Amino acid sequence: MPLEALLQSERAAAVAADALVLMRELFPLVRSITGDGVRRTLDGVEAWIPLTRHEVPSGTPAFDWEVPNEWNVREAHITDVATGRRLVDLRDHSLHLVSYSTPLRALLTRAELEPHLHSLPDQPDAIPYRTSYYRETWGFCLSQRQRDALAACGEGPFDVVIDSTLAPGHLTYAECRVPGQSNDGADEAVVYTHVCHPGLANDNLTGIAAAAALARELLAGPRPRLTWRFVFAPGTIGALTWLARHEAELPRIRAGLVIGLLGDGGALTYKRSRRGDALPDRAAELIVPAAGGRLIDFEPYGYDERQFCSPGFDLPFGRLTRSPNAAYPEYHSSADNLDFVQPEALAGSLQCLAGLIGAIDANQTWRNLSPKGEPRLGKRGLYGLTGGAGPGQFEHALLWLLNQGDGHHDLIDVARRSRLPLPLLARAAAALVQAGLLAPADAHSFQPFNEEGTSP
Amino acid sequence: MPLEALLQSERAAAVAADALVLMRELFPLVRSITGDGVRRTLDGVEAWIPLTRHEVPSGTPAFDWEVPNEWNVREAHITDVATGRRLVDLRDHSLHLVSYSTPLRALLTRAELEPHLHSLPDQPDAIPYRTSYYRETWGFCLSQRQRDALAACGEGPFDVVIDSTLAPGHLTYAECRVPGQSNDGADEAVVYTHVCHPGLANDNLTGIAAAAALARELLAGPRPRLTWRFVFAPGTIGALTWLARHEAELPRIRAGLVIGLLGDGGALTYKRSRRGDALPDRAAELIVPAAGGRLIDFEPYGYDERQFCSPGFDLPFGRLTRSPNAAYPEYHSSADNLDFVQPEALAGSLQCLAGLIGAIDANQTWRNLSPKGEPRLGKRGLYGLTGGAGPGQFEHALLWLLNQGDGHHDLIDVARRSRLPLPLLARAAAALVQAGLLAPADAHSFQPFNEEGTSP
Amino acid sequence: MPLEALLQSERAAAVAADALVLMRELFPLVRSITGDGVRRTLDGVEAWIPLTRHEVPSGTPAFDWEVPNEWNVREAHITDVATGRRLVDLRDHSLHLVSYSTPLRALLTRAELEPHLHSLPDQPDAIPYRTSYYRETWGFCLSQRQRDALAACGEGPFDVVIDSTLAPGHLTYAECRVPGQSNDGADEAVVYTHVCHPGLANDNLTGIAAAAALARELLAGPRPRLTWRFVFAPGTIGALTWLARHEAELPRIRAGLVIGLLGDGGALTYKRSRRGDALPDRAAELIVPAAGGRLIDFEPYGYDERQFCSPGFDLPFGRLTRSPNAAYPEYHSSADNLDFVQPEALAGSLQCLAGLIGAIDANQTWRNLSPKGEPRLGKRGLYGLTGGAGPGQFEHALLWLLNQGDGHHDLIDVARRSRLPLPLLARAAAALVQAGLLAPADAHSFQPFNEEGTSP
Repeated sequence: MPLEALLQSERAAAVAADALVLMRELFPLVRSITGDGVRRTLDGVEAWIPLTRHEVPSGTPAFDWEVPNEWNVREAHITDVATGRRLVDLRDHSLHLVSYSTPLRALLTRAELEPHLHSLPDQPDAIPYRTSYYRETWGFCLSQRQRDALAACGEGPFDVVIDSTLAPGHLTYAECRVPGQSNDGADEAVVYTHVCHPGLANDNLTGIAAAAALARELLAGPRPRLTWRFVFAPGTIGALTWLARHEAELPRIRAGLVIGLLGDGGALTYKRSRRGDALPDRAAELIVPAAGGRLIDFEPYGYDERQFCSPGFDLPFGRLTRSPNAAYPEYHSSADNLDFVQPEALAGSLQCLAGLIGAIDANQTWRNLSPKGEPRLGKRGLYGLTGGAGPGQFEHALLWLLNQGDGHHDLIDVARRSRLPLPLLARAAAALVQAGLLAPADAHSFQPFNEEGTSP
Repeated sequence: MPLEALLQSERAAAVAADALVLMRELFPLVRSITGDGVRRTLDGVEAWIPLTRHEVPSGTPAFDWEVPNEWNVREAHITDVATGRRLVDLRDHSLHLVSYSTPLRALLTRAELEPHLHSLPDQPDAIPYRTSYYRETWGFCLSQRQRDALAACGEGPFDVVIDSTLAPGHLTYAECRVPGQSNDGADEAVVYTHVCHPGLANDNLTGIAAAAALARELLAGPRPRLTWRFVFAPGTIGALTWLARHEAELPRIRAGLVIGLLGDGGALTYKRSRRGDALPDRAAELIVPAAGGRLIDFEPYGYDERQFCSPGFDLPFGRLTRSPNAAYPEYHSSADNLDFVQPEALAGSLQCLAGLIGAIDANQTWRNLSPKGEPRLGKRGLYGLTGGAGPGQFEHALLWLLNQGDGHHDLIDVARRSRLPLPLLARAAAALVQAGLLAPADAHSFQPFNEEGTSP
Repeated sequence: MPLEALLQSERAAAVAADALVLMRELFPLVRSITGDGVRRTLDGVEAWIPLTRHEVPSGTPAFDWEVPNEWNVREAHITDVATGRRLVDLRDHSLHLVSYSTPLRALLTRAELEPHLHSLPDQPDAIPYRTSYYRETWGFCLSQRQRDALAACGEGPFDVVIDSTLAPGHLTYAECRVPGQSNDGADEAVVYTHVCHPGLANDNLTGIAAAAALARELLAGPRPRLTWRFVFAPGTIGALTWLARHEAELPRIRAGLVIGLLGDGGALTYKRSRRGDALPDRAAELIVPAAGGRLIDFEPYGYDERQFCSPGFDLPFGRLTRSPNAAYPEYHSSADNLDFVQPEALAGSLQCLAGLIGAIDANQTWRNLSPKGEPRLGKRGLYGLTGGAGPGQFEHALLWLLNQGDGHHDLIDVARRSRLPLPLLARAAAALVQAGLLAPADAHSFQPFNEEGTSP
């Protein structure tokens, strides 16, 4: 079905249910910023949408950074030697191992082990999420209850096994490209989601599944105006690597959305781009409050909007989440599990994203071809023929589009100023184009009625 | 008396009383967008002020439109053949005939007649106002009670007579020009009011009478800074025709006001120009709220501001009404009669318009001729001579004008920033000009003390 | 101690106590816009800080003005001849004589004397402050009780003595210059205070003492970024003379503060510059509300900001007072005495001024030297090394500075947008400069770690 169908609650609920199936499948994988966990995750996504995969060798520079060694792990556990009891086991939960832990096979006393353990005393049942990508070390994350049980075993020794490899390999990311009409497809928009977090459902299986679902719906509908690129990549180093490898393409990007954390019970939260008034920000002003959400200003902490909005790029990227990063108690712990994700919250996020993508994609700027005085709409069948009783909402939309059609006001401007719904304005614009009264203002414009998806 | 006198309640009440006499005389005329009803209306206005009349032939193009055939009507009625009863007669009310109805003389059944009847079931005593300028048809407007009475006559036949002509002729409009000083009179302002509505008092005999009264007062006073053009023309096609015939003069226009609907009990409502910050908008920010009124944003529906503010012109035209179009139940029906107009409301509108016109006309931009530090006002007799006790309001006005006199702030800016009354600032500016401390900032400036009305 | 120490309440209280000692010493001097009262006042200031003095001859032009004759007075009194009672004597209070009174030695009747007397009937114990700089006359200011007592003496005669001189001489002003690093010291800031008022403590011994104290602290600390000039000069003609004599230096001025009236019980009041968004205005937005104060818009009445903000200069000068001029009952009368000044109010003013001067001086604009994506802070020891748990406030400051480091946002912008304290941001900027990640954006920039005070 086309993306617009997602604006309907029923369709959004059905797609959210699909998404939860995908998330359930992806949940157990041991993801990190590199390695097979990412590859298996992309396999799952590829069951829904076609992906172009990229494997970038370790050591490849990305501005101030470089692609690190690839990390994979087969097993990791701590056993009390005295009793033979397995106290912590990666098989039980993918958060148990600090991401990028170096290999280890050793008998350790508790004193030696303790500095490598991470727990949350205030949330005794939750396993924290910890990483150490750029300092070679190792560690285990466990619930406070597990840690207490380990302490009850006395001073050890403990048999500690981390069967990992950290060696030259690749960083993996993938894209799904939905070609657009405008400018022969060279006007682009990006949806970016991070694929590196293990064992956390809201952060970020919701983002992965939502991106996959949106791409699937967009592929199923008429060719959009913009070329939409859905990027699945690890956080920070993935975004940096993507920016470095696609730097020449960046000037084509009209809008970008970083998405994630779309299934918790918090209100939808759109974080503005660094510019504050970029295209996605303006679309969000229309769409997000109407969906019960709120907008917050940019700050240079969060997800990969940090990289897209660094001053050397300053790209028009906003971010949509429900609760922002670190703004809910379950954040970055095993309490962010599949049960934590609310299907209706995820469905609402999908509706809002469909609205945002739709508004960004529809945001043509128009030129009135009969700009001196109002054109006679009546003789073109666009206006009530007996005067005196006033126009309806569609006729108001026609008048607004003609009035603002000076090549300087885009559809979002007109929607904001007229307080008319953007889809109504888009339909009215189509009628005026057909009547020869309106034309796209930009040189490289799309054919609004070409639903076959061929570029002009 | 000069226009400023209208700022006083007593004078405004007297002029409103005059205006009501004129409105009473004009009320019965069968006006439309062309024809003798407009000509007789202008005759009435000409008893007050000199007019230059324009007769534009049918078929004359006006952008996407052209001047239609001229329409005149002598009589129109519906008679129940069975009883000889005259059920509807144009002689009773000029709204009874759909404007531009084609000629007809026929015996019709009720079934044939019904599709040509217009009534307001919810307002059973009111006759609606309907037109059909651009689709050749005919129709009668009648109260629901009349329509019920007609239905009570059974199936007819009915003798239907419309003795009208619709044939090549002319569209009529007129202007009263009050020459100004600035730029040899080439800096202009426009007051525009529509003269096409029959049988409605608020819409728009109030606008016609107010424009006539304002022009009369302005002609009686000292020569204004701007040349003020008062335009009396039919709605839409009249405005388009005026724009087409005066297109070369449009760059001279510094401000325009569309006026009408000035006598109902609603609050004064200034509708901003498309630009939103044009000169009349800025004047209205000062004047209208102080008169108890409000400002609303531009929208491309309403009166002839639609044409003046189309994107091909984007002229600095605002609109002053009391209730906006379609915002009162009596709108476009026979309930908008002479009794509906409140004399004190009309007087208040005249006061507000005198303020607006005064502010627009006074809105010079000044240059301080002694801009480095404050000039010594004391030695020029403009300031209290013993220091320490602080200045009065007039001295504050002097300081504000000197401080803002950088050629970039006009009198409205200074009034807004200083919160001092515009007339006080205008007097202070005159004193500073006389003292050689201030000069108009624009090349083509007027002589503020030339009260004889001769151009410089 | 360096200026920053003044941000602490204890240090501010100690400096305010010092200032009150200086004020007590300066209080009895008969100050005016010229003469020995000003010179003795500057002697008192010079005990604290080095001054460069300027003596400008009478007749020297200053734009629309010129330096007046110098005025000095030795004695002035009124004696009831009948009783030999000294009714008014300048020795009792320096406000008793109208400033610039011409010499006189005469026996006068009460009728002749009355037009030359000034009192405040509503404040019977207060002596008003009156001047007559530019109209040659004489007068006495006295309390209403004294005036009643004089009236009780009957019709006189009264022996009236004014032993003054009004003759060609000089206008005196002085500067204390604290050299800065930026642009070889050529980027300047000014603190201006008026030294002309006799016998008023809040207006303006508080301004004089505060300026002296701030200069003293600034001289004791590390070399500031800007060259700070503290100007002690008479009001109006002093400011005009200073502007005229230093006109070529005005383009160097980045910010200016007029200060005075810093010891009354009113809230701190920052008056914006004419521009409204100049550097000191932006600093004040950060500093003054946090100190419990408020900002008000510019108006062209007040103290010497009138001259600095005249349109021919339009300098970036704001003003800090507690109550504004004329906004307290004791204003310009003998009730504005040393007891009227509250030590804790003066201390609070000093704290606020230290904050303002600090913010203006620290307001560098930075450029991120690694602007594409975030640089790796971890490898530079600037960031927590185990991921997942989120950054602290210092790390947020680093991220904000890097993100806004595009050469267009100064430190005040970053403080406003990030809501982080300006001193924290300044420390974080220093760390980033040291790490090679940030550099000053302007060509003529200072060395932030050069505490020896040598220019680069």
